[in-house]
Amino acid sequence: MNLPQSNKPRIVIIGGGFAGMNVAKNLRNIDAQVVLVDKNNFHTFQPLLYQVATAGLEPDSVTYPLRKIFNHFNNFFVRIASAKKIDIENNLLITDKGDIEYDLLVIATGAETNYFGNKKIEHYSMPMKSVREALDLRSLILQNFEEALITNNIEERQKLMNIAIVGGGPTGVELAGALAELKKYILPKDYPDLDFRQMTVHLIEGQDRLLAAMSNEASNKAESFLQEMGVQIWLNTFVEDFDGQIVSTSTKKKLPTKTLIWAAGVKGSPVDGIESDKFGRIPVDETLKVLGSDNLFVVGDLAAIEGNLQPMLASVACQQGEFLAKNLKLHLANKAMKPFVYNDKGTMATIGRNKAVVDLPNFKFQGRLAWYAWMFIHLMLLVGFRNRIIALTNWVWNYINYDSGIRLIIRPFKRKELLKEDVLEEV
Amino acid sequence: MNLPQSNKPRIVIIGGGFAGMNVAKNLRNIDAQVVLVDKNNFHTFQPLLYQVATAGLEPDSVTYPLRKIFNHFNNFFVRIASAKKIDIENNLLITDKGDIEYDLLVIATGAETNYFGNKKIEHYSMPMKSVREALDLRSLILQNFEEALITNNIEERQKLMNIAIVGGGPTGVELAGALAELKKYILPKDYPDLDFRQMTVHLIEGQDRLLAAMSNEASNKAESFLQEMGVQIWLNTFVEDFDGQIVSTSTKKKLPTKTLIWAAGVKGSPVDGIESDKFGRIPVDETLKVLGSDNLFVVGDLAAIEGNLQPMLASVACQQGEFLAKNLKLHLANKAMKPFVYNDKGTMATIGRNKAVVDLPNFKFQGRLAWYAWMFIHLMLLVGFRNRIIALTNWVWNYINYDSGIRLIIRPFKRKELLKEDVLEEV
Repeated sequence: MNLPQSNKPRIVIIGGGFAGMNVAKNLRNIDAQVVLVDKNNFHTFQPLLYQVATAGLEPDSVTYPLRKIFNHFNNFFVRIASAKKIDIENNLLITDKGDIEYDLLVIATGAETNYFGNKKIEHYSMPMKSVREALDLRSLILQNFEEALITNNIEERQKLMNIAIVGGGPTGVELAGALAELKKYILPKDYPDLDFRQMTVHLIEGQDRLLAAMSNEASNKAESFLQEMGVQIWLNTFVEDFDGQIVSTSTKKKLPTKTLIWAAGVKGSPVDGIESDKFGRIPVDETLKVLGSDNLFVVGDLAAIEGNLQPMLASVACQQGEFLAKNLKLHLANKAMKPFVYNDKGTMATIGRNKAVVDLPNFKFQGRLAWYAWMFIHLMLLVGFRNRIIALTNWVWNYINYDSGIRLIIRPFKRKELLKEDVLEEV
Repeated sequence: MNLPQSNKPRIVIIGGGFAGMNVAKNLRNIDAQVVLVDKNNFHTFQPLLYQVATAGLEPDSVTYPLRKIFNHFNNFFVRIASAKKIDIENNLLITDKGDIEYDLLVIATGAETNYFGNKKIEHYSMPMKSVREALDLRSLILQNFEEALITNNIEERQKLMNIAIVGGGPTGVELAGALAELKKYILPKDYPDLDFRQMTVHLIEGQDRLLAAMSNEASNKAESFLQEMGVQIWLNTFVEDFDGQIVSTSTKKKLPTKTLIWAAGVKGSPVDGIESDKFGRIPVDETLKVLGSDNLFVVGDLAAIEGNLQPMLASVACQQGEFLAKNLKLHLANKAMKPFVYNDKGTMATIGRNKAVVDLPNFKFQGRLAWYAWMFIHLMLLVGFRNRIIALTNWVWNYINYDSGIRLIIRPFKRKELLKEDVLEEV
């Protein structure tokens, strides 16, 4: 691949998510050539993807062009390509657009949706890990209501209107809340001919509480908020099967719906050529260096620190990114690298208008104040002043008007074909 | 299709563009059932599509959900479906989602890109008549620059960087100006490794001046503005061929580029089952009623009024829509319908920052004041207060920062496959 020759060491970073972007940002002015490789030309602020899916924000609020972040950096190169393989012996990253030699390689390819091997669920359900997937979900939900209007079949109509979400973590909880608000405030205005008592938002969680990574107070409050908003919560329940029409669960409860949103888990998304564990994560030492290697580093969701495993969270990825940049500088200076220590500043989740839950290390609170805190923090975390203005304008508009402006089916989602059972093995 | 039975007459409108939307808006409180059918769930403000294509605005600023426009109307129904055929004998509109009976039918399906029968150009060139096409064009232009960075082949790089636009009407002129500004202010920051002297924006027009529908003053000023901005203008030149690599013209000049934007013309986009002329437009009398019919009406770009042919412009479509609603009310009251008279309030086009041309019936002006007028009018014409705020925020941001925030390749455009000459007839 066309890159300037240089007598300085070349650091190649794969992935411009929270982890990779923060490594790159903190390598500014380093005495090396830095190359950032990503398959997209933008960074995605994943925590707000659920608002893209529920027609609250457009993609431009939750994404940011990578080139714009880095166009003032010297000796820094962005290349849009898909990483295919790492040739460790030859220090070569192989991509769909050509090969790149590296001196140091940082792997920050993050995580992908985990279907736990269930091919049928993978085929029929809707993931929400990328902007494209969030837009597909938005299109499908709106298409469902258009079809519900047209059909004369009551059972069919109910399957089109119902939505099931699997996974009671932050993504599932935030989606359930946003969909409950669509049902309450927005969809009945758009579809006055439909009876919205026929629509149910189901939230299915395998453990005995929602937001299992947060405090009991947060879990309980999130549950009661969602119940107030009309969400049906199924705890201690696992989804066993989905044929595009009926969700079958471990409690024998069957939910009729054409829309199953899969937010039940993620796994590491490594690059070929490097060994990962059964969760797809790459084992690293406490300095974030790959075990047994001298020039391979892993950061973010993909990194499994031996003896100090971290949760797959945006805040961990950001801290690791910043930290690894410092370690790389030590490494280039032939100094000893330091061990990563996570500084937990707290976690939060929003459920709806004036409803959020916040766990700080020494203080927990829920409700309106938590919601303001959530909005403020997320606005500040968005990359770029312009994105903040646009997101804030949309939020204020929606808050005042109980409305959102962008219920647009720009690219209709092509509904999945029915699978024949015997074809399933090959999907 | 599922629609409430009613003893009132049913008016079906096909198309929610400027014409159809304005018919529908002005039928509020009519003593009839009104059904609006569109293949998209949104109205598109086509005059600003070029800003979506050049990464200045997101789709939510230039589109508006149809249901939101009409959700306060009584006895009014929006159905998202594609009109397939009109069965005139049985007063039936056949769509991909089922049939709809009508008493009165308003056809407002507008216009589509006209390739004048050239299949090869249709295959390789980029149209820009819909939001999806504008987004595809945005993706392609950005993908081209990513590829130009990666290639080592200088000729290939130049083809990737050059852009040719066919058609010197408002769309072509506005696109050329916006692309020239991208080249001047934005792309060199994002791609510091590329030499932008290698990039040329070509604007090709068959007639002897740009903006041929406007005054000579407007044409001359638009031409000199574009030349100042570095656009190569080819007047009296017709594109004869394009193979995805080289544009061949009637003057034997050949332009190497992989991106040919086709803004050279439109034709009517009628529905099967009704006769149209060789420009695809449907002949109507001066009341907008189809000749020889008693309950078929045509409005907007599709209407060819015998003896009073109107240009295919948004302002004509809006006026005809409003006018036809009045005529339908007269028709339902068994009163004589009136003849349509176009009230020409003037035309305008924008070329770039502080550069626009305005022709009013008694006054023509160009430059900064014209640009302010253009912006003010277009903001006011956008549907909905929210869209105006978001568009204005983007414009102010871009104006101050010489930048735009949304250079995002959300859905990469799949480059067209090379055609074999003998396959061409079947394309």
